[in-house]
Amino acid sequence: MNALKGETIVEKYVDDSFALHTDLYQINMTKAYWDDGIHNRKAVFDLFFRKLPFGNGYAVFAGLERVIELIQNFRFSESDLAYLREEVGYEEEFLQYLKDLRFTGKVRSMMEGELAFGNVPLLRVEAPLAEAQLLETALLNVINYQTLIATKATRIKQIVEDEVVMEFGSRRAHEMDAAIWGTRSAYIGGFDATSNVRAGKLFGIPVSGTHAHSMVQAYRDEYLAFKKYAESHKDCVFLVDTYDTLKSGVPAAIKVAKEFGDRINFKGIRLDSGDMAYLSKKARIMLDEAGFKDTKIIASNDLDEHTILNLKAQGAKIDVWGIGTKLITGYDQPALGAVYKLVSIEDDQGELVDTIKISSNAEKVSTPGLKRVYRIINTVNHKSEGDYIALEDENPQAEERLKMFHPVHTFISKFVTNFEARELHKDIFKDGELVYSTPDLSEVRGYLLSNLELLWDEYKRLLNPEDYPVDLSEKCWNNKMEHIHQVKERVRQQHG
Amino acid sequence: MNALKGETIVEKYVDDSFALHTDLYQINMTKAYWDDGIHNRKAVFDLFFRKLPFGNGYAVFAGLERVIELIQNFRFSESDLAYLREEVGYEEEFLQYLKDLRFTGKVRSMMEGELAFGNVPLLRVEAPLAEAQLLETALLNVINYQTLIATKATRIKQIVEDEVVMEFGSRRAHEMDAAIWGTRSAYIGGFDATSNVRAGKLFGIPVSGTHAHSMVQAYRDEYLAFKKYAESHKDCVFLVDTYDTLKSGVPAAIKVAKEFGDRINFKGIRLDSGDMAYLSKKARIMLDEAGFKDTKIIASNDLDEHTILNLKAQGAKIDVWGIGTKLITGYDQPALGAVYKLVSIEDDQGELVDTIKISSNAEKVSTPGLKRVYRIINTVNHKSEGDYIALEDENPQAEERLKMFHPVHTFISKFVTNFEARELHKDIFKDGELVYSTPDLSEVRGYLLSNLELLWDEYKRLLNPEDYPVDLSEKCWNNKMEHIHQVKERVRQQHG
Repeated sequence: MNALKGETIVEKYVDDSFALHTDLYQINMTKAYWDDGIHNRKAVFDLFFRKLPFGNGYAVFAGLERVIELIQNFRFSESDLAYLREEVGYEEEFLQYLKDLRFTGKVRSMMEGELAFGNVPLLRVEAPLAEAQLLETALLNVINYQTLIATKATRIKQIVEDEVVMEFGSRRAHEMDAAIWGTRSAYIGGFDATSNVRAGKLFGIPVSGTHAHSMVQAYRDEYLAFKKYAESHKDCVFLVDTYDTLKSGVPAAIKVAKEFGDRINFKGIRLDSGDMAYLSKKARIMLDEAGFKDTKIIASNDLDEHTILNLKAQGAKIDVWGIGTKLITGYDQPALGAVYKLVSIEDDQGELVDTIKISSNAEKVSTPGLKRVYRIINTVNHKSEGDYIALEDENPQAEERLKMFHPVHTFISKFVTNFEARELHKDIFKDGELVYSTPDLSEVRGYLLSNLELLWDEYKRLLNPEDYPVDLSEKCWNNKMEHIHQVKERVRQQHG
Repeated sequence: MNALKGETIVEKYVDDSFALHTDLYQINMTKAYWDDGIHNRKAVFDLFFRKLPFGNGYAVFAGLERVIELIQNFRFSESDLAYLREEVGYEEEFLQYLKDLRFTGKVRSMMEGELAFGNVPLLRVEAPLAEAQLLETALLNVINYQTLIATKATRIKQIVEDEVVMEFGSRRAHEMDAAIWGTRSAYIGGFDATSNVRAGKLFGIPVSGTHAHSMVQAYRDEYLAFKKYAESHKDCVFLVDTYDTLKSGVPAAIKVAKEFGDRINFKGIRLDSGDMAYLSKKARIMLDEAGFKDTKIIASNDLDEHTILNLKAQGAKIDVWGIGTKLITGYDQPALGAVYKLVSIEDDQGELVDTIKISSNAEKVSTPGLKRVYRIINTVNHKSEGDYIALEDENPQAEERLKMFHPVHTFISKFVTNFEARELHKDIFKDGELVYSTPDLSEVRGYLLSNLELLWDEYKRLLNPEDYPVDLSEKCWNNKMEHIHQVKERVRQQHG
């Protein structure tokens, strides 16, 4: 960012806007629409992913706060326009149009902490075609990453259960934004704290951390290093694996803790290498025998939900988990494939006409139309029966019973009576104005927990969860089939 | 960043500095050092990774420009200090110390585009202990990611050879910084262009892109959409797979190209789904038969070096490659594990004393001492014999012959005569002042190419490359062994 830029790195264009954080084709399409005079036709785009990440049974939506920030500040700066003029070569009249452009449309979205499933729109943009198009890239960039990490975090949180889990991944995050927005996503997903102080400052996430191996090396001695730390800090967690965990690290920590007595809180020791199961059990015995039964053992060494599950199965005596690389990079699946598809557009009569993208891959066929998304909650057992996607003018709550299909094997179906059809989207922007008040992060965390309670355990298990039902209403399904037919017919007529 | 922040998102602390983009333990260690009065002792840290990513035979160093920006702007802002005071609870005197803190040390680093190998320091910081420590997290955050992506990019570039390859991954990057710094890294690694316009603006990377499926959907017809695009733009690449690639997409593109004749440059068609090998061959025939032999076929669909290699093996007729997810996320290994280790520190007599971190894992034992890194280039065949790490006061160029070992199987060794010992690090900061002038990106690209020429092909192949020799000088090796011995002796004496 310009404000943080060194004076000596001379740049031709200052980094003072995110309007160009988009793919060039968005601007080139805008140019064509503007030349053709259709740039202000109302268009509807759905943002959704097709496949859940990590083999998980659900995803956790995150990214809305950043999306709001982007949309509110959406404007081309003078340096943006100068670059487009001088380096890309657009004509002046088009640049003048871009200069005056602001977001004037509507955005409906899930709240952060909502559970999301394949093919369920996370967010919908209804706006003049050009505006909706220009925002696509940044919206996907932000939501794909933040939703991915919030989802990964809930997987890890599920395994640690009530134990404390902290985000330690900044050094392995993909550049600086990922470090802070990733840890925010982890906090949404149930993490308790972060090591990244900037994330603490910006988002109010609790920060955590005491010292590294380098401090032991600086004093060339564990006892001395721990003592110096204890002289400076009331709360102490000593890192015990710089030289030899059981022979020197743990004994030195105990020695310092005994010497300092009540002058410090000997909160824990941290293991960062070696056989965590073995070392934690041995260290636990040493701590207990020394009278430090409340001192916690913290582990941090390339952990994820799989290694934690295995450590627990081995009876490791670990109380607190520090998670870095595997969380912040979404290591085992580092991309969520969310896409942004045009589903409806105004025609020259001012009527919305639905559109479709066909593919030889059945899962890639988009679902046309202005739609609403409902979670169908059984009012008897308070569990979700599945998600239900209907056209805008439908009212599933008015139905006496809903027919819901298995998402893949459609011959399996069920009728649901006694249900609440809870709409998943809220208005975020209307006529370009923000009409949504961002909840604070503790509310978002609580919202996720209440959402998770709606799911049967079979959808939540880490390995091979059941497929959660995501259905189209009959009307929505028929509309889709009709559009597929129309396109095929058009292709056939045009080209034989 | 504050400058780009929406007015309605109220935040307690503005995002006006990167000084807190660090792990809390760095500040807590600094506090202990400051309390003990050793915060200004000179410390030496090496930044290096142990294992090459993607099974590649080398890595490509990137991230220095961002590191320079961070170090030059290293200062705690008023809002940083307010956060540390109010939320973390540091005392006023310590905050005053932080307030006045600037970087006053020395940084030596590889240039961007340099080839890097396991255990070879990429960058070395010699600075007052507190300053060097506080920078660690951000330096790793930036260098780990940028070096990872530059390396991935060279793998892909190696397979496409002289064909054009473009970065299309913004929507799947890990938040916004990764999109722009990732594409800069890809450009360093040999990519030709990016879709991200902001990256074009900031770094002068050529930008590329024409239209998406949504444009075809907006007009509900490929012929019409292509025609509208052609009316607006001279250079045309038509995306042909919205409905049916061979039956409607390619014929519509050809029809428009014929109608417009010289009024457009029919530069290409783009395939984004389906069987790329089959479709490209069929499309090539159709284009050739229509007289468009120079029109390129562009492919973009979750490609990486492996899929490209396979497409080429199948005789796919693809001329230009658009690479997204698999590049920008480093998909098959989304983290480089670079670390930052204290190797030497001033004692109370003002003498530098070397330090070591021991581990039960042999690869994790650090190499003590102030060192210099050389590439040993054979002056007869102009190929590199390996990298050579020596202590600061050694001069390998003065040796008549150098003994170099296999990095893993040390019993395999060779003597090198007729060599140039080229130092890999340059001074970047001295006494806190920037003394390095950043080359422009075209120079960095050229530098990488000249470096790659130094390597035998055996080190460069994608699959199972030979291990490149990375040796310690005898003096450096003996120093390391002596420190290992010292530590073991100390542990034994202290705790039996």
